Amino acid sequence: MKVYALFLTFLVCFRPTFSSNFFQLPSPWGWACEEDKCVKKSAGGPTSLLTLNTCKITCGPAGALWPLPTMAIVGNEVANFLPTNLTHSLTCGAGGDSCQLLQEAVTIFQDNLHRYHPNYKNGSAPWVGPWDPPTLRHKLHLDVTIQGGDGILTLDTDESYELAVSRVESVTTAVIIAPTFFGARHALETLSQLAEYHETTNSLVLVTNATVSDAPAFKYRGLLVDTSRNFISVGVLERTLEGMASTKLNTLHLHLTDTHSWPLYLPGLPNMAYYGAYSPSNIYTPQDMRHLQHYARVRGIRLVPEIDGPAHVGNGWQWGPKEGLGNLAVCVNQEPWQEFCVEPPCGQFNLANPNMYTVLRKIYFEIYDIFNSVDIFHYGGDEVNLNCWNTTDEIVEWMTANNHSLTDDAYYEQWGIFQEKARLLMADAAISKRMKEPTGMIWTSHLTEMGRELRYLNQSKYIIQIWSTGDDPVITKLLQEGYKLVFSNHDAWYLDCGAGAWVGEGNNWCSPYKGWQAVYNNNPHRLALELTGNEYKDAILGGEAALWTEQADDATVDAKLWPRGAALGERLWSNPSTSWSLAELRLIHHRQRLMNRGIMADRIQPQWCHQNERLCYL
Amino acid sequence: MKVYALFLTFLVCFRPTFSSNFFQLPSPWGWACEEDKCVKKSAGGPTSLLTLNTCKITCGPAGALWPLPTMAIVGNEVANFLPTNLTHSLTCGAGGDSCQLLQEAVTIFQDNLHRYHPNYKNGSAPWVGPWDPPTLRHKLHLDVTIQGGDGILTLDTDESYELAVSRVESVTTAVIIAPTFFGARHALETLSQLAEYHETTNSLVLVTNATVSDAPAFKYRGLLVDTSRNFISVGVLERTLEGMASTKLNTLHLHLTDTHSWPLYLPGLPNMAYYGAYSPSNIYTPQDMRHLQHYARVRGIRLVPEIDGPAHVGNGWQWGPKEGLGNLAVCVNQEPWQEFCVEPPCGQFNLANPNMYTVLRKIYFEIYDIFNSVDIFHYGGDEVNLNCWNTTDEIVEWMTANNHSLTDDAYYEQWGIFQEKARLLMADAAISKRMKEPTGMIWTSHLTEMGRELRYLNQSKYIIQIWSTGDDPVITKLLQEGYKLVFSNHDAWYLDCGAGAWVGEGNNWCSPYKGWQAVYNNNPHRLALELTGNEYKDAILGGEAALWTEQADDATVDAKLWPRGAALGERLWSNPSTSWSLAELRLIHHRQRLMNRGIMADRIQPQWCHQNERLCYL
Repeated sequence: MKVYALFLTFLVCFRPTFSSNFFQLPSPWGWACEEDKCVKKSAGGPTSLLTLNTCKITCGPAGALWPLPTMAIVGNEVANFLPTNLTHSLTCGAGGDSCQLLQEAVTIFQDNLHRYHPNYKNGSAPWVGPWDPPTLRHKLHLDVTIQGGDGILTLDTDESYELAVSRVESVTTAVIIAPTFFGARHALETLSQLAEYHETTNSLVLVTNATVSDAPAFKYRGLLVDTSRNFISVGVLERTLEGMASTKLNTLHLHLTDTHSWPLYLPGLPNMAYYGAYSPSNIYTPQDMRHLQHYARVRGIRLVPEIDGPAHVGNGWQWGPKEGLGNLAVCVNQEPWQEFCVEPPCGQFNLANPNMYTVLRKIYFEIYDIFNSVDIFHYGGDEVNLNCWNTTDEIVEWMTANNHSLTDDAYYEQWGIFQEKARLLMADAAISKRMKEPTGMIWTSHLTEMGRELRYLNQSKYIIQIWSTGDDPVITKLLQEGYKLVFSNHDAWYLDCGAGAWVGEGNNWCSPYKGWQAVYNNNPHRLALELTGNEYKDAILGGEAALWTEQADDATVDAKLWPRGAALGERLWSNPSTSWSLAELRLIHHRQRLMNRGIMADRIQPQWCHQNERLCYL
Repeated sequence: MKVYALFLTFLVCFRPTFSSNFFQLPSPWGWACEEDKCVKKSAGGPTSLLTLNTCKITCGPAGALWPLPTMAIVGNEVANFLPTNLTHSLTCGAGGDSCQLLQEAVTIFQDNLHRYHPNYKNGSAPWVGPWDPPTLRHKLHLDVTIQGGDGILTLDTDESYELAVSRVESVTTAVIIAPTFFGARHALETLSQLAEYHETTNSLVLVTNATVSDAPAFKYRGLLVDTSRNFISVGVLERTLEGMASTKLNTLHLHLTDTHSWPLYLPGLPNMAYYGAYSPSNIYTPQDMRHLQHYARVRGIRLVPEIDGPAHVGNGWQWGPKEGLGNLAVCVNQEPWQEFCVEPPCGQFNLANPNMYTVLRKIYFEIYDIFNSVDIFHYGGDEVNLNCWNTTDEIVEWMTANNHSLTDDAYYEQWGIFQEKARLLMADAAISKRMKEPTGMIWTSHLTEMGRELRYLNQSKYIIQIWSTGDDPVITKLLQEGYKLVFSNHDAWYLDCGAGAWVGEGNNWCSPYKGWQAVYNNNPHRLALELTGNEYKDAILGGEAALWTEQADDATVDAKLWPRGAALGERLWSNPSTSWSLAELRLIHHRQRLMNRGIMADRIQPQWCHQNERLCYL
């Protein structure tokens, strides 16, 4: 009988409310910050427990900031406020369009605050709720100063910032001082992480006292998205840029083209997309690219376009033979593919056809037309299959006619000559726009081995991107030779690994899956220092995680990139000397932020672990 | 000079059209069906090439039907039509609400046709386009007969159907005859797969001559979704049911509760969700469950609710101690977790507390109130940790007071007794509603070993679900003892395997990832026949792939379930004697259908492979 009396008591004690779409039960739980962790407690007694969000952003030395700043003191005083109560004063001593970018960044900041609301939609949120408005008259005032810069992100840009948050009565002021727009933008991201949704008042909660002094450990902090194996829509690339902005990554490397498809519509070379796009709707227009470029820049991100060659070309290049001009590419879709390339379909440039260079020149000029400014251009340059060239009659005849042997070395020499020609064509394209030649990037390959790199790749012209393993001896050698490096070692930073195979059965070539812990622990300095000592540290520009899209498209890009991309972000921004385990709590919370921004990030733990800090351990 | 002339030619020859959101380029490609495969061809000449979709649904012996019917002849004659031009005549000789279900199923069928449109939204699609309306006056007429059944899916339900599609002038008629509503529903799914979007006319293309005779190989074709480790919203469960319907899976096993959280709101026991839900909004109301139950049934699917015990309980059970009633569960969130359970957090029923049974009885009655009819109920029953009980004072005292020893066997005996009590409580709940006791399901565990199964688990009362490996000797033993089995061997059918670890580093316990090929090749008959011979074939009811959600939530459930769930679907419906490689082309196309239905299924190959059949091979 007593048991039933108990049921009755509980039925009477709280009243669930039903509405058309929402079922609201109260919660018996609250959180308290104890020994730098949020502890879940029964809210039964007369204690002053926090909501989970409030605890997360105020507990521990850096709250839930991600990536961890160089120096941060985060207080535990908070105020409730509405993101509509935002004012700002901007002092802009910078050139270019920096000041206009800053205005846009403030608008984005405000939008990101709105996005904390669980029912955010299209730029606004239903803040009106069951709270008492006078308690929410608190204001956030931004006082932002940028001292210089021209609004263009280069490898020399100072991305540092200072942020001081303090409260006087009902106004919290965030003072931001940064050498460039890019630093100021990062400061706004940090500030946005000092706020969170507060469900009991349907408002935001804001930390009102904090000091942050911050600068990135690495200059190049990138993600690669392959848009050729499967098409990735502009909307998904926007979301990718949102995620990158939230975690202070600064480079989106677009592997725009490959053997599989050519999605980039070039107005002066419409045949490329006409023949090469998967469908008439799987196309990027110049407007799309310009839109993305601006979308990225105002979020502190550069685009690095890659037009791969001389391998990884094929579909899109089939229009050459008409009118007797010869094939622009050879081995295109040739079978059996295993003999001519590393994955279906095959294809490589036709080195014997001078028209191929005419077209390539045109492509580079078009790239310049579209992007206007290209600071870094990626030439691709990996996985050339010599058997393709050496079994193609027109190439063999051309080699022989020009007194080249048919040895591997002879073909590598032609590859090297191709690369230098390509670079000069790109330099021409830049000069025609009165711009300087972009810094080239190129993958490690047979061209970066056996001294070929010294013959064909000038150290001042190229950054070399490592995609082999983190312990590849080529890293030492390239550093000693004076090359600048970006790390994408596949044993930690290939985000496509660990799915089922897409040719044959079993799992894909670089399995297993790289968990966020492995992504986080992959320190390019450590990798290189183990091999080389400290002297080449500055030559390591940073790193980039790669999402090759043989097995990803719009449906799954978000979950493959995030939250692992955020783990990469902290590694490259903060380069912590500690391991993943100290970052776990903040990452789990940061994943919630990514979700607020509309990114369908992967879930890496039960919700229970988010609510019961440090209890999901081994 | 000639090269530039060529560019000009192409610029003049086709005219890309730009609109606000859509960039339309023509395509130079078409497809032809040659030797049962769709071959991509240049559309330059005066040939009559097909669109890719038209080729897919007409090429090969069964077009793109998924799962493969028992017998299918699919013609290659097609007609263009609009899904608004649908009529039907229904002949219903069945009981219960079968006839009403059939009406609803026809509406769903029509909606699924609309969903083929790339711009489908909320039940309709912009069919009006640049086509000539008179050519689209073609009609589809459904002539459906169901002969019996009562609209309730049981393990005895006949799900077979006959489908004949033929054309007379401008009307294509689909004659469907089925013994029950469920067969007729399956026939409509098959019929929907004889249609596809036709982009050049902005209409549908429909196969106008086909004959299908079909029945499932297995009676139990399931997916498990865990809603406790992370909450899964009703909308995502609806999408899961959509995917299951499209692939003729018939059982959604909801692992509703676990140690981590209790999301099910029971009006008579509100404390369970009050204490156990992750948040007030992470709750299923009775209305939600009834809605899902109907949503499932009209799509040919039963719900199997699981309330796990005596282990895998904890959060939600913390309210017992009040008013001196003693703990309902013990070891809840106890530390260090490694000593008391297999993953954090811990918790098991308090066998020493008679109130625990009072509450359990109430829960079962509430389950019956919510679901009204429960044909199969899952008791959970795995991973009991004896150390938890044996280190809990009140349990040790109770064991001693009742003259039980503290040996493993003594505790297993108490577990067995608990299970029988639980079953009798469930039987009571059923009887109180004038229903028969539901068939019980239970996981393989220490209770299904060492002869304990024979003592505590009556063969006529329980189905045993295998979650160990496919070669576990327990399979032979259980079959020989007369048990009915459902396979969920984790080495092929655990869909959560292969992510990073969520406690510690490295990858999760059942890595690597199970690719769709492994899912497809896992034949329960073969697994069991290798062990036992043919005599126990009928005791193998089917199989179920499990998505445990420690590392999945709304953001990623779709991609983890699909298209692998479809691979499971064909295994369990068709049980083909052939391997995955012959199914690959159809599966890739079926993934496109899942996407049309709003499911964010994983991409398993480059789009190039979909367009270039049989060229992505090893």
